[in-house]
Amino acid sequence: MTEKRPLILVSNDDGISAKGVHELVRVLSGIGDVVCVCPESPQSGMSMALTVNSPLRVKKLEDYHGAGMYKVSGTPVDCIKMAVDNLLERKPDIVVSGINHGSNAAINVVYSGTMGAAFEGCAYGIPSVGLSLTSHNEDADFSPCYPWIIKIVKLVLEKGLPYGICLNVNFPAHYEQFEEMRVVRSCKGRWNDRYEEYLDPAKRKFYWLAGRFENEEPESEDTDEWCLNHGIISVVPVMLDPTFPHPEQFSYLNSSPDNQ
Amino acid sequence: MTEKRPLILVSNDDGISAKGVHELVRVLSGIGDVVCVCPESPQSGMSMALTVNSPLRVKKLEDYHGAGMYKVSGTPVDCIKMAVDNLLERKPDIVVSGINHGSNAAINVVYSGTMGAAFEGCAYGIPSVGLSLTSHNEDADFSPCYPWIIKIVKLVLEKGLPYGICLNVNFPAHYEQFEEMRVVRSCKGRWNDRYEEYLDPAKRKFYWLAGRFENEEPESEDTDEWCLNHGIISVVPVMLDPTFPHPEQFSYLNSSPDNQ
Repeated sequence: MTEKRPLILVSNDDGISAKGVHELVRVLSGIGDVVCVCPESPQSGMSMALTVNSPLRVKKLEDYHGAGMYKVSGTPVDCIKMAVDNLLERKPDIVVSGINHGSNAAINVVYSGTMGAAFEGCAYGIPSVGLSLTSHNEDADFSPCYPWIIKIVKLVLEKGLPYGICLNVNFPAHYEQFEEMRVVRSCKGRWNDRYEEYLDPAKRKFYWLAGRFENEEPESEDTDEWCLNHGIISVVPVMLDPTFPHPEQFSYLNSSPDNQ
Repeated sequence: MTEKRPLILVSNDDGISAKGVHELVRVLSGIGDVVCVCPESPQSGMSMALTVNSPLRVKKLEDYHGAGMYKVSGTPVDCIKMAVDNLLERKPDIVVSGINHGSNAAINVVYSGTMGAAFEGCAYGIPSVGLSLTSHNEDADFSPCYPWIIKIVKLVLEKGLPYGICLNVNFPAHYEQFEEMRVVRSCKGRWNDRYEEYLDPAKRKFYWLAGRFENEEPESEDTDEWCLNHGIISVVPVMLDPTFPHPEQFSYLNSSPDNQ
């Protein structure tokens, strides 16, 4: 009896042309049946954005290493919905999003389209993982990640993930190999944003977002940023549901005819 | 000595032309100095999407009830960043986003652009509130919400909110007045999505997202959906940081040279 191969849904936010997703498809096609559904254009920073006020188009492309390849004229969340609701014959066993070109550690997780796809998989009750390499290089070398990706995907397929929790995995760039992977928490910090000002040829102003991440706890060893700064792969379990678990702390907002 | 008026930053996701945001600006101009910075086009379902790969334009419009009005060619998150980083002379005392035309209860909170703006305010450490009325009617009657909005905003200005927590407030539509407001949790449930299929004039397929929310716990009285179905205003405190607080549950993913 042959073991049933898992059905692996792959997506990303850098778009169907990115190197990261092609490498991911190739690596995962060794351990399962892969279907890849990606945005047709780059969708970095799209978070869990969803297309509700306009139509979507879907195009099937040529298979890649045996995997079905599709592009969708929408966001990473749209890709997961379109795949699960419309393209796949059965619910996938796992959603793997990435490999993102760039870090999704710390607060980046909330803006990340890569993690948007993982969170959406999570909303369907599918174990979901987002993978990122901390390099924006279009031709980055993802190969040190491969054995670890296989390890993570196999472990998650075997053990599952609790409903509503997915994994945000970041690989530090510029290492030839990794020796360690740690389950940690998101580092506290924020973007010090500013907008660069420009003039277009007609002398009208436009702006472009710039900024620098400010780590508020560089010494905390149990954070993703610390791991990434020390050559260690970080795994942060994250929750889809943002509900604060202690609503009673805000009971001063309760108001009824009796206490008005 | 006159009391200093609070600086109130207003945004939304329905865009600068929506009735909900105009009503909100008018109501809040009675209790503070209001600056309103909204997307120039509707941005429903944009979550915390952020414009990183293209430029932004900003246009100052005519004041409305004494409030400065601006439109930005981006998302709700872009509007908050542009306001705080570029347009306002000081950090606002509160961010109020809405009033959204449509519910942001239950899982809608993660897709909501209205809440995207509130979460972004939260990331700046500004007490932030998202307001929604459960009606998509463009000309909905928001007036029953006004006394409650003033009450909420005054309470939040007085008491502040802990860093990283903002409020998701939903008002049930079609009530002439409200008698009760409750601090509750997000209802568990999911969208049963499907894509409607169409053919364009050139006979090419396109898709449009449709679906219906499925409440998984209609009898639970401590949820936002229950409140909204019983004429009660719901307030759900929500967290910006999605980190799962018990990473040790996933320690099987730890891997070091010692345990490989």
